Amino acid sequence: MTELSSTSADETRLVRTQGVTAPAGFRAAGVAAGIKKSGALDLALVLNEGPDHVAAGVFTRNQVKAAPVLWSQQVLTTGRLRAVILNSGGANACTGPGGFQDTHATAEALAEALSHWGTETGAVEVAVCSTGLIGDRLPMDRLRAGVTEIVHEMAGGLSGGDEAARAIMTTDTTPKQTALHHRDKWTVGGMAKGAGMLAPSLATMLVVLTTDAVADAEALNLALRSAAAKTFDRLDIDGSCSTNDTVLLLSSGASGVRPSQDELDAAVRQVCDDLCAQMQADAEGVTKRVLITVAGAHSEDDAVTAARVIARDSLVKTALFGSDPNWGRVLAAVGMVPFPIEHNRITVSFNGSPVCIDGAGAPGARDVDLSGPDIAVEVDLGLGEASATIRTTDLSHAYVEENSAYSS
Amino acid sequence: MTELSSTSADETRLVRTQGVTAPAGFRAAGVAAGIKKSGALDLALVLNEGPDHVAAGVFTRNQVKAAPVLWSQQVLTTGRLRAVILNSGGANACTGPGGFQDTHATAEALAEALSHWGTETGAVEVAVCSTGLIGDRLPMDRLRAGVTEIVHEMAGGLSGGDEAARAIMTTDTTPKQTALHHRDKWTVGGMAKGAGMLAPSLATMLVVLTTDAVADAEALNLALRSAAAKTFDRLDIDGSCSTNDTVLLLSSGASGVRPSQDELDAAVRQVCDDLCAQMQADAEGVTKRVLITVAGAHSEDDAVTAARVIARDSLVKTALFGSDPNWGRVLAAVGMVPFPIEHNRITVSFNGSPVCIDGAGAPGARDVDLSGPDIAVEVDLGLGEASATIRTTDLSHAYVEENSAYSS
Repeated sequence: MTELSSTSADETRLVRTQGVTAPAGFRAAGVAAGIKKSGALDLALVLNEGPDHVAAGVFTRNQVKAAPVLWSQQVLTTGRLRAVILNSGGANACTGPGGFQDTHATAEALAEALSHWGTETGAVEVAVCSTGLIGDRLPMDRLRAGVTEIVHEMAGGLSGGDEAARAIMTTDTTPKQTALHHRDKWTVGGMAKGAGMLAPSLATMLVVLTTDAVADAEALNLALRSAAAKTFDRLDIDGSCSTNDTVLLLSSGASGVRPSQDELDAAVRQVCDDLCAQMQADAEGVTKRVLITVAGAHSEDDAVTAARVIARDSLVKTALFGSDPNWGRVLAAVGMVPFPIEHNRITVSFNGSPVCIDGAGAPGARDVDLSGPDIAVEVDLGLGEASATIRTTDLSHAYVEENSAYSS
Repeated sequence: MTELSSTSADETRLVRTQGVTAPAGFRAAGVAAGIKKSGALDLALVLNEGPDHVAAGVFTRNQVKAAPVLWSQQVLTTGRLRAVILNSGGANACTGPGGFQDTHATAEALAEALSHWGTETGAVEVAVCSTGLIGDRLPMDRLRAGVTEIVHEMAGGLSGGDEAARAIMTTDTTPKQTALHHRDKWTVGGMAKGAGMLAPSLATMLVVLTTDAVADAEALNLALRSAAAKTFDRLDIDGSCSTNDTVLLLSSGASGVRPSQDELDAAVRQVCDDLCAQMQADAEGVTKRVLITVAGAHSEDDAVTAARVIARDSLVKTALFGSDPNWGRVLAAVGMVPFPIEHNRITVSFNGSPVCIDGAGAPGARDVDLSGPDIAVEVDLGLGEASATIRTTDLSHAYVEENSAYSS
């Protein structure tokens, strides 16, 4: 085992063609269990073959939590996981005590199938994630059969990371995965679906991160929480929050390398940030990728709050959809932050061009070109030194269409 | 003067064809001053001919306040007003010290024109309201000429309440006015533009209310604040809040009747409620009029908070646009309220049909018909006895179109 100094840029390499099976000690699979009516892949498995089985998780802050969230929160209290089973095609949220029994039964079925295959597993070592429509019970007969099938599939030996990433998609148009290879021969991989997390969420966000670094549960927990706070928690598509959001980090220790906490933090954060960028780019109805930065705040919390208020403002988001440099809407949004500001100190720029200086319009503000797919909104409150950035998108016809035309 | 008991339904009559000039002692006018490029009416005047000149106002809670809001808040500290001058075609917000000077100059110009016409007036007796695009200075040459013209127009003697109501329109498709006639021969009238107020706002909301009841400033203030809290403050179209929202109540005392505080409260609230209904029905892009009621809360504040969280949820609003009884999105929204709830006590109905009972789906929930233009969403938290209702609308293609296709 090696204790290393903190990472610098050239110590790591990100590869988007790999995912949860990039680190040593992990297998994955994805199958079509018939939960989705379309016949698409809808059941995913990630198995940690060890030698370690350390794990940490963060979950939705929504008070209405889906059965799989309640289950997975409970099993995570042990700080260890052997496997994660994930389904799309149904959220198993607001399904009453029966729904919780279904989640429990799914974990039991997987533990049994894995044990039968030779990996002695208890249900308490299995996290469950679900995504899809809220309110309907899952088709348990199909799910049980799917669990048996997916363990067989995985036993086939092929790396099924791609299939797993596909099987958790709902309104996603592309699978999302990435892997970070550290120069010192340890790796962090991840797959994600949806966009939004914790406070915000467009659809459910499910993320499974894997690493072959050696780390105890506390180290994983610290790395995951600090990464989530700076990445998933700052991705705010529509301010809605899912009942099912779950991010899990599993460590196999198979590399034999124990990175420093700083290195682990940095690597996990980089993987999370890349998955965030992929989720933002594929958010429902997105036509613009928008970065809202608030600087000059008294604290980072204030900066996050202000950036989030702007990111959630429908009038700002529709203006950006229209490529309209309507900075007045940004000012009006900022004016609603829950801490005192001074409107005549506020400066705003769009894509680097100043549009508002000291609370009033800058020359040429109405002519700034926002026609490209990326828009940077920078607001300086002129009060302090802290800053923060929120990733969001515009509010488009496609967003309305996608969210009104059918139940999701 | 008469002190009366509290009103009952048949003591009052609402007439939507009348507005601010329905009460005795008021004149109004509307002209096209050339502030709007379209040549439409864009300048309105409401004059209180007395004998009293009592007034009260409530204003936007946005910290970024337009110049006319800062001015009108200041003059209202005297508790008296002789006139209100209102323009559309420009918000005069985020326009720096020059913008404030423009507002002051507008009040001065009106005071001068009225004095010249024989009504001795000081600028401090003139409230100013503006609405339109944020960030541009007003064309003061046209505005000054318009002020002279509108005083002449009013001097012509015709009741210009209709023109005044039209002159304050921006994206409104119809003028909004109403008058309540009390059996005891006093009247409250009002005109409004926009939708949303105080916390929420779609476009700027401007409202001028008039009454010939005899009332002191404190009585007007009480009536206006309690009415606004229950009406305008519970109209939430898109959660955005304007820099210019203003509601003014002027009393001429010309009826000679002094109603009880309860009667005045009830009458002002009824007029405000009717104006709210008109604003909701004409909100930008509305295809559904939605009433969100939260019952079973520990306090009315909690109920308002919960109803507002639901009313602002983009996923709920797009589902309603699609006539989709997707109650899971309502549960997910409720789960984000900032006070503790118990998800397995929550009951939801759409248009009176139960769709969720004790946190789980009700039989037939997916088949409830929401195809009509009115949707009632009722949520019972099962925690206490308090309830509250928020008026909102769906989130439609037309909303996106209207707010993206041009600066407003």
